[in-house]
Amino acid sequence: MKKTQEFIANNQQRFLDELFELLRIPSVSADPANKSDVLKGAQLVAKHLEEAGADEVEICETEGHPIVYGEKIIDPKLPTVLVYGHYDVQPADPIDLWDSPAFEPIIKKTEIHPDGAIFARGACDDKGQVFMHVKAFEAMAKNEELPCNVKFMIEGEEEVGSPNLAIFIKEQKERLAADIILVSDTGIIGNEHPSITTGLRGLSYVEVEVTGPNRDLHSGLYGGAVANPINILSEMIAQLKDDQNKITIPGFYDKVEILTEEERNEMAKAPFDLDEYKSSIDIPNVAGEEGYSTLERSSIRPTLDVNGIWGGYIGEGAKTVLPSKAYAKISMRLVPHQDPDEITSLFTEYFESIAPDSVSIKVHPHHGGLPAVTPIDSNGYIAASNAMEKTFGKKPIPLRSGGSIPIVALFEEVLGLKTVLMGFGLASDAIHSPNEHYGLFNFYKGIETIPYFFDEFAQLNK
Amino acid sequence: MKKTQEFIANNQQRFLDELFELLRIPSVSADPANKSDVLKGAQLVAKHLEEAGADEVEICETEGHPIVYGEKIIDPKLPTVLVYGHYDVQPADPIDLWDSPAFEPIIKKTEIHPDGAIFARGACDDKGQVFMHVKAFEAMAKNEELPCNVKFMIEGEEEVGSPNLAIFIKEQKERLAADIILVSDTGIIGNEHPSITTGLRGLSYVEVEVTGPNRDLHSGLYGGAVANPINILSEMIAQLKDDQNKITIPGFYDKVEILTEEERNEMAKAPFDLDEYKSSIDIPNVAGEEGYSTLERSSIRPTLDVNGIWGGYIGEGAKTVLPSKAYAKISMRLVPHQDPDEITSLFTEYFESIAPDSVSIKVHPHHGGLPAVTPIDSNGYIAASNAMEKTFGKKPIPLRSGGSIPIVALFEEVLGLKTVLMGFGLASDAIHSPNEHYGLFNFYKGIETIPYFFDEFAQLNK
Repeated sequence: MKKTQEFIANNQQRFLDELFELLRIPSVSADPANKSDVLKGAQLVAKHLEEAGADEVEICETEGHPIVYGEKIIDPKLPTVLVYGHYDVQPADPIDLWDSPAFEPIIKKTEIHPDGAIFARGACDDKGQVFMHVKAFEAMAKNEELPCNVKFMIEGEEEVGSPNLAIFIKEQKERLAADIILVSDTGIIGNEHPSITTGLRGLSYVEVEVTGPNRDLHSGLYGGAVANPINILSEMIAQLKDDQNKITIPGFYDKVEILTEEERNEMAKAPFDLDEYKSSIDIPNVAGEEGYSTLERSSIRPTLDVNGIWGGYIGEGAKTVLPSKAYAKISMRLVPHQDPDEITSLFTEYFESIAPDSVSIKVHPHHGGLPAVTPIDSNGYIAASNAMEKTFGKKPIPLRSGGSIPIVALFEEVLGLKTVLMGFGLASDAIHSPNEHYGLFNFYKGIETIPYFFDEFAQLNK
Repeated sequence: MKKTQEFIANNQQRFLDELFELLRIPSVSADPANKSDVLKGAQLVAKHLEEAGADEVEICETEGHPIVYGEKIIDPKLPTVLVYGHYDVQPADPIDLWDSPAFEPIIKKTEIHPDGAIFARGACDDKGQVFMHVKAFEAMAKNEELPCNVKFMIEGEEEVGSPNLAIFIKEQKERLAADIILVSDTGIIGNEHPSITTGLRGLSYVEVEVTGPNRDLHSGLYGGAVANPINILSEMIAQLKDDQNKITIPGFYDKVEILTEEERNEMAKAPFDLDEYKSSIDIPNVAGEEGYSTLERSSIRPTLDVNGIWGGYIGEGAKTVLPSKAYAKISMRLVPHQDPDEITSLFTEYFESIAPDSVSIKVHPHHGGLPAVTPIDSNGYIAASNAMEKTFGKKPIPLRSGGSIPIVALFEEVLGLKTVLMGFGLASDAIHSPNEHYGLFNFYKGIETIPYFFDEFAQLNK
């Protein structure tokens, strides 16, 4: 990989300029207003794959946003790596909390990133990390050091739950045939503490609607005599957890994977400073399920969060209205063995059961996703671990993450393939938040590490 | 009053056309964007007072929106009636629920208003009812049948709690000297069931802000370990009432006026059909404080309603965010003897006391208002009762209302004057809601009744 690594070292600025161009496209998949921007994102990714040396590059239409495919088959006898990622991004709002425009990338130094970080929506999640793969591939291909076959599947609907990906991979089973799936959409503990995500939480996401009167009423004339949908919704949300912060939905915990004391002790070894954690997000105190540590609460335990709530008058000043409707978006993070569809119906059943007879309730399920685990004795994991050890000079720690990449479970189910989550982001990168950023160190470290993964994986599969 | 009533009968269409012109002005006092519209409203009211024959007409500047003053002193020895009303209106939103534009008045027939009703924001609350007084005055003045002196004080900040009215009436004490205050900003039970409001609920209105982390977080990475401001706010709102729908704020009920069984039995005689009530707003069931009827819950008992709530992602699709902040607007309707400032501080104290240490809380008090009661043996009440009996052919029922006109208590305190609430709206007029309307029957019945009030009041004060 000597020529490849030299090529990477000599093209750093160009790689960055090209990434900036991609980051300037507001490919927000959740907002229909950005549909054409999402397409532009797909076209630019396809262009780069072709220029990097991929064959069969295609922008595959779906019911929603397209999936970009590309491949390089150098020898059918060699193992094949399927690289997955996404070029769509989360909405930028609240926009006014960004220090610089979300879609005008700039480099700024931070305490954690003294060499500078790229500030832009998607810098880390996932355009920046996808681009590492495109550029690492370019370096290997142009220097004829590609040790395996490679396939790319870069989608545009990950941030809205990949509604069309399942259909695509079922239809394209042969075309997607591979030995391992490689994804960079996760993070490491720190730039001094490499780690590999071995577990992911699943997701159940619902939108609830509480309806009281058929129109907004004057709270003076009707208040006290007619159920207020906001008060009712608040009371119902409050009933979803008990005083120990355990979720009260009957059956919710039935299938939750119980870790052994030993496993929990292993986890507890990961470097973690509670005061640093609290001050990094400026909270007076942590809070969560009784009997578990902060790391456990955000990785091995399921959760329930209200992601959005609205109802009544939310404008300036004071309006004395008793509103007709109140809404909330509620998501539950799931751990291994919990099934999203089952949890969604348990939620729906329970939520309807606690609704008073003075209102009517609707529960709309959004997307869900299965939890997943990567065995640390698999070739894929070992290849990633060795590659990172080469570039970080330290063996990475296997770690459970609280986030969800629902399609990882899907890949296993449909393609029968394990996924390796070799991500390079940091928890402090503010993904899904204002001022999302990605360290230059991490961006280049990723490009540098990926070729070694290919190398290691080829060796292990000889 | 013969010539006056003939004049009224002969000018109905012109009165209506003039009112429409006033209704076309979006004088929304709560929204700074409408500041110039509110001023236009004041100017048009002033113009009509002058044309009707008022002297000393003036648009009195305040720190906020102006107050329109005008008077007609025909003889210092005669009693003086001070007419109060407001030309500002509630915001029109939710705009998409209006069948016709909120500020483009039209006449439509309804089941309750077979002769037609005026549909527009402010048609009933309070432009329509203020205009009845201007036109009744015009009729009496032009026909030289004005039996008392009259003063007008029409403000532009009633819908935001009259923040500057107190200062104004304190400064203008002499100028506002009168024997009675007459206000039409309330309603009657039905067009067949005239009634006069003798009690009004007070108001305490606060905005609360719950802050968790210093930025929106990824609910997958932090969910379960960091307190979610929306969940917390919901739990805190739920704690404001117990399972009997009694408000849990310590001391909240201490000063509540307790009615005798006899008074409650009198109230119970007012015509009321629960099924009609439920179907009129299309609710499966009523809900409220245990041990009280629907009429009592909405008139003689204090209440707590969330008027607005917002936080997190409320756009299209699904965003997995753990938000930094959540907000709610909360109002409490108060009954005689409850003091708004005291209740606001009781609320603040309690709300802060139930906040977990994982978040920080802010409570911003909005405007408040004292409850008020009009004695049914006062000259003002008797004059109104006799006047309505003349025009409706039925003695009106004295009734407690759930709404608030905070300034009624203020008038008593500063000017030492009782207020008569001779309003002509109906509960079904949808004030503060989409499709607010005001019956033509009610509009003209008001114009017709007001001169008789002046006549009766003059007699009683001879």
